[in-house]
Amino acid sequence: MQPFRFHNPTVLYYGRDQIEQHLAEEVTKYGTRVLLVYGGGSIKRNGLYDKVTGILRGAGVTWWELAGVEPNPRLTTVQKGIDLCRAHDIQLILAVGGGSVLDCGKAIAMGAVFDGNVWDIYLKKAKPTGALPLGTILTLAATGSEMNAGGVITNWETKEKIGASSPYTFPKFSFCDPVNTFTVPRDQTVYGVCDMLAHCFEHYFHAKTHAPLQVRLIESVMQTILEYAPKALERPDDYDARETLMYCSTMALNGMISMGIQGDWACHAIEHEISAIYDIPHGGGLAIVFPNWMDYVVDTDPSRFARLATEVFRIDPQGRSDRDLAQAAIARVRAFFRSIGAPQRLADYGIGEENLERMAAQAVRFGPIGRFRRLEKDDVLAILRRCL
Amino acid sequence: MQPFRFHNPTVLYYGRDQIEQHLAEEVTKYGTRVLLVYGGGSIKRNGLYDKVTGILRGAGVTWWELAGVEPNPRLTTVQKGIDLCRAHDIQLILAVGGGSVLDCGKAIAMGAVFDGNVWDIYLKKAKPTGALPLGTILTLAATGSEMNAGGVITNWETKEKIGASSPYTFPKFSFCDPVNTFTVPRDQTVYGVCDMLAHCFEHYFHAKTHAPLQVRLIESVMQTILEYAPKALERPDDYDARETLMYCSTMALNGMISMGIQGDWACHAIEHEISAIYDIPHGGGLAIVFPNWMDYVVDTDPSRFARLATEVFRIDPQGRSDRDLAQAAIARVRAFFRSIGAPQRLADYGIGEENLERMAAQAVRFGPIGRFRRLEKDDVLAILRRCL
Repeated sequence: MQPFRFHNPTVLYYGRDQIEQHLAEEVTKYGTRVLLVYGGGSIKRNGLYDKVTGILRGAGVTWWELAGVEPNPRLTTVQKGIDLCRAHDIQLILAVGGGSVLDCGKAIAMGAVFDGNVWDIYLKKAKPTGALPLGTILTLAATGSEMNAGGVITNWETKEKIGASSPYTFPKFSFCDPVNTFTVPRDQTVYGVCDMLAHCFEHYFHAKTHAPLQVRLIESVMQTILEYAPKALERPDDYDARETLMYCSTMALNGMISMGIQGDWACHAIEHEISAIYDIPHGGGLAIVFPNWMDYVVDTDPSRFARLATEVFRIDPQGRSDRDLAQAAIARVRAFFRSIGAPQRLADYGIGEENLERMAAQAVRFGPIGRFRRLEKDDVLAILRRCL
Repeated sequence: MQPFRFHNPTVLYYGRDQIEQHLAEEVTKYGTRVLLVYGGGSIKRNGLYDKVTGILRGAGVTWWELAGVEPNPRLTTVQKGIDLCRAHDIQLILAVGGGSVLDCGKAIAMGAVFDGNVWDIYLKKAKPTGALPLGTILTLAATGSEMNAGGVITNWETKEKIGASSPYTFPKFSFCDPVNTFTVPRDQTVYGVCDMLAHCFEHYFHAKTHAPLQVRLIESVMQTILEYAPKALERPDDYDARETLMYCSTMALNGMISMGIQGDWACHAIEHEISAIYDIPHGGGLAIVFPNWMDYVVDTDPSRFARLATEVFRIDPQGRSDRDLAQAAIARVRAFFRSIGAPQRLADYGIGEENLERMAAQAVRFGPIGRFRRLEKDDVLAILRRCL
């Protein structure tokens, strides 16, 4: 293990009826002037908007709205939210949606109290000075943003998609009711599964260190995702399956399975460059990049992949070399993504080689990426070519 | 899963040199008047006392001391601590030791701001009204008290050992440096292992609910304890083994592997009654009680035990019934405790049947205990007789 400091102050509510029972109490801890942030309107169709606004009204809360947050949330939208916070003296941001809406809420929370351009925080040119309190109601099992401090924003003008994290941006509280994911469309469910599994992979292929419990915890989350994703896809209103996936997504990126290890994160960096130009779903991009990254880096340490084969995919190791098991594991990862209908090649999104050079250059603009294997620009380019 | 609220605000530091780097900063967040709480003096022998007081001195902190906290910390000692806090206007309690010292610190923290007798909080006759801030430096991998809100105190006059938990008593910060456990005597290391494994068992035999990820997380911790306890016992200064055990003990009872499940906790209740009368080590008592509880309740749901056999002890299930596998699992639990030199019978502590009736009656005085199987007085008595 690497020495570490761990602190996750988010109050997490899980299960049916928690919103009805505890939302008013949590919101009014922070004030009575709220900015309600949400996406394309699915929460209006499934009744969640009415439920939440009803609770706010009943609690004497006044709210303003920022609607239409994009799947890859944009800096321009963040700026609108910041302006609303300042104009109306907002005391709490309540983000209702998936990871994009939550990430947008985090950027607004930092930006509203920041004396300068919030994008500078993402560019690491400035440090956040604080944040408005943020509460969340999750509607999509994917990013884990409900219980971590991270968020990713896209600057559409400069075609940059960058993440930032700060102790200020842990949600104060998050409500996760699996019922709110019953109506998530199939493709979004698939992208969510890709994303949470990718988070596990990032942890699993950490910089080498002695962390046997963490490795097992990560394997536990992976096994459970692999087991329950098909169930949720087969029966979208299967409460147990939706709940299990939602819980996996939270645990995959709330820091609890990754204390003392330093994840790889190269695939996320590469995917961000694809999405920054083509605006494709993050989870879809990860499903394309990960197996190809695995092929490219496997020889760095085949034993790590062999363990994935035996412990997660439960492949019998008898008579097989690490190299052979590693290949089997990667084949199983590919097969899983294929089985749930995830995209497999950049061509599935109509992406050709026109921008690969630019993406590779951008991916390493802050330096080489990846901790399992350090990747330079040429490595990234080679991986992207495999993705075509 | 049961609907749940999770909040664990403790700031956790793990690894070498974290105390040197961050203790002063954490302490002085809360003030400059500290009550230093510790046990029988092992921290003076191993140099930790000098290190900590050197850091406090360097940070301009004034401290008072409560030394000699017992292995089953006593109410009379808690009261001394409360008196010191009040007399010297203490701003932070710094508990340096194992679970007993930390639990004592929690009781003092609540008692110092409580208008009444702190024991009433343990008797559930009163609710805590707050607590002084508590920081901890852990020296023994066992109870998980460094990252949870619970603590157990013994009233030696009434022969009662009772736990209490409150959101106020999460440590504000905890420092876990495996090096501080190198000099822990063998028997204490063994008791710690028994305790952390018992915490896993309590979670594992939860009231039936659908929680597949939690089950795997618990299995991960159990497997890792089983693997690393022998290594730490063989080489007490094996950093990786000590670190892994310490981390297992924290994860076994910080709530992260048990969200949304309700643990059994009957064995802990039974053990408390034994310790309350005979003052035996908690971990030793648990090692005696658990296998006998398992024998007694196994037919309630043999499949749970069968899973323990296949997933934790990796016993091949082929051609074996759940009942058969369950028996194999219990035999392996017994064999593990024996292999590390844990006590196996009450007779090992010179305890006969003279107080079994009284212990059984006390164990259920607040009502039946256990969630995997609900136990009445006669059940507890039957289990205790098996322990003789």
